Parts: sequence; C-alpha cells; structure tokens
Amino acid sequence: MDRKKGILIIVSGFSGSGKGTIMKRLLEEHQEEYALSISATTRAPRPGEVHGREYFFQTEEEFKAMIADQALLEYAQYVGNYYGTPKGYVQEQLSSGRDVILEIEIQGAWKVKEQCPDALLLFVTPPSAEELKKRLIGRGSEEEAVIASRLGRAWQEAQGVEGYDYLVINDDLEECVQNVHSIIQNEHARVSRNLEQIQAIQAGLRCFVKGE
Amino acid sequence: MDRKKGILIIVSGFSGSGKGTIMKRLLEEHQEEYALSISATTRAPRPGEVHGREYFFQTEEEFKAMIADQALLEYAQYVGNYYGTPKGYVQEQLSSGRDVILEIEIQGAWKVKEQCPDALLLFVTPPSAEELKKRLIGRGSEEEAVIASRLGRAWQEAQGVEGYDYLVINDDLEECVQNVHSIIQNEHARVSRNLEQIQAIQAGLRCFVKGE
Repeated sequence: MDRKKGILIIVSGFSGSGKGTIMKRLLEEHQEEYALSISATTRAPRPGEVHGREYFFQTEEEFKAMIADQALLEYAQYVGNYYGTPKGYVQEQLSSGRDVILEIEIQGAWKVKEQCPDALLLFVTPPSAEELKKRLIGRGSEEEAVIASRLGRAWQEAQGVEGYDYLVINDDLEECVQNVHSIIQNEHARVSRNLEQIQAIQAGLRCFVKGE
Repeated sequence: MDRKKGILIIVSGFSGSGKGTIMKRLLEEHQEEYALSISATTRAPRPGEVHGREYFFQTEEEFKAMIADQALLEYAQYVGNYYGTPKGYVQEQLSSGRDVILEIEIQGAWKVKEQCPDALLLFVTPPSAEELKKRLIGRGSEEEAVIASRLGRAWQEAQGVEGYDYLVINDDLEECVQNVHSIIQNEHARVSRNLEQIQAIQAGLRCFVKGE
C-alpha cells in the first residue's frame, strides 16, 4: 500500500462511547503510524501540562493572529477561552506520512471537512441507545440531571451521523481498536488517494503501446 | 459489525494482474462469507463443467427471455455466444448475508454499478506497468503479438480505473488476499450501509430525551 501521504482522520462520538480510550490504544499500539492533532488554546496550563504535548498554549493575541492568518482548521470559544486546531502541525505530520487523528465534535468536524475534503470521518458509538445510557449511568459519579443532559446532547449529535464515513461500534474494546486501525489502513487503498500511482501505470502502459 | 446484508463486490483488473488467483484464495479461505457470482451462458458445457457450478447453461431462447425480463445485471456477446450475470442468484446470496464477488471487466462493471449503486468496485493491478509486462512475458507460452495485444487492452482498461473504489496492488499474493478481505470487511462499517442501525440509535435516544 502506498504510504506516501498521511490521512487526516476526524473521530467523533457520543460522550460515553469510549472514543478517548480507543484513540489512546491506537496511538500506543501504532506509534509510528499515527499522530494525534494537538490543539491550541488560550486557557492557562494546568500543573503537569506541557506546551506542545497537551496543548499549544497561547495568548489571546497570538490566537487571534492565527485566526486572522487562517492558520486554524477550526476553532471555538468555550467558557471564555479559545480552542482550535492549528493547520501547520497537522500538515507537517501528514507530509511525514503519518495519519493524523483529530478528536473533535460534529460542528468542528464539518468545518475541518470543508477545508480538507479528503479527511476521513469516523463516528464512535455503543451498539445501542440503551447501552449508551447504561454506560453513562454506570460511571456512577454522575447525577441524574447530568446523565439527562448528556443523553440530550447525544440525541442532538446523533442527527449528524449520516454525514460521517464510517460507523465504529464500540462493543468489545480490543476488537474496536483493531477495526479502527483496519479501516484507516484500507483507506490508503482508495482510488482517490492513489491517483499518482494510477497515472504512472497509465503512462507506463501508454509507452509500451506506443513503442510497439 | 453488521452482517445482515451482503455487499456486491465487482472485481476487475488487467489480464496478468492475478485477480483470478486472489479470488480463488479468498473463497477458499472464507467459504462462509463469500459467494462467487455464477454467469449464464449459451455456449455448450465443456467436459467436466457442471450446470450451476461453472455456469448456468442455457439455450439462446432462455437467455433472450432473461434479457427481456430484465433478469440479468449485465450481458454481452462473445464469439457468437451470450454471457451474462443473473440477478436472481446474486440477490439470493446477498440476502443470505454473503458478500457476492463478481469478476467482470470494466464495461460490465459500469452496467452493474448502474443497477446496483451500492456495489463495491475493486481494481487489481501489479505495482507498475513494467511489472505487468514482465508477468505477461513470464508466462512464456505467449507470442509477442499476443503480449502486445494484451498490453494494448490493459492500456484501454487503465483509462477506467478512476471510476473504481479501491486500487488493489498485487505485489505479494498472501498480503493481497488479506488486503482484499480486509477492505470488504471494513466496507460493512460504512455509514451508508448501516442506516437502519443509526436510525435505531437515533430513535432510542429520542425516547430517552422525550421521556425525561
């Protein structure tokens, strides 16, 4: 398979779908193949957080300059702080041949897809609504109102699933990590991602035919 | 993964690409999951050929009735005989949950895709034009004119590759069989092939939200 250029992979999913755990496992098991996109933020670093690892920490002025320079794939404001996806880091990783994973919610996913039509969109879900509710309750620490609010949000998010490329059902974690890896690997064999090689074969055959 | 309904897989590729061997291996290794589409033909059975195994052998009258009844996904005439793909057998296998493999050339592939927009199109090729030529020559038994004619045909066929979904590069046979299997398995996770399950999750979430 052709590994010249990486694929930008957008991963979304319900809160409680286990998407964070899946991504963590994927990156642990295939360090050389994947990179996780690092967000920029104007919020202050928490103890232990490292610039360029958890986040790129920036002043509001710096962040606004990135917006003005169109240096962000998407951004949003949340509780008074900016969060966004720097284009440069993503492109650098893609050029090095790594597939870049961007864990992001639906609204951001559409914005990124607009700028990167080649992005691959995965949506992670438990096998059923019942199972999602069970997992949210199962966390134990949440109040009923919090669970209700999460289910309400899940319902809203569920309206956008049809716009994704793949439905990733997280039933068994190991199997799910394996499936996600396999989906991404196979995506490299898409005709639309191999046009250069196809054109090379066409040109080669043309040479033989014209030469004879 | 959802295995309720099978996928129709169209496999094309250059003469000398090894697509026949790949399909044979795939069917041997995963008997329960795949079925090979069986063509109908008006040519006489050869010794050892069995009706319903190699071909459905038919009279010209029967064949023309199938054309009139739109009971064929595609058909063509070749050296005075008809060859075609009966819809019924394919649909039966798909309904039973098997993925059906249809080894067919580009012209037929477009006809089938028109009737079955959900069909998955794979194109098998050696890694390069040079390698294709080498393999055609390597067969040894062919005259130069035959090789030239095959390369000419390959050049023509190569013009249609962009219309396929996946480029399957046959470099190492084992790896290639594994890749094809993996591509097909993952295709079952496409959002467009899981709309029922998505709608069930949406409906379930809606219930929770409305109930609370």
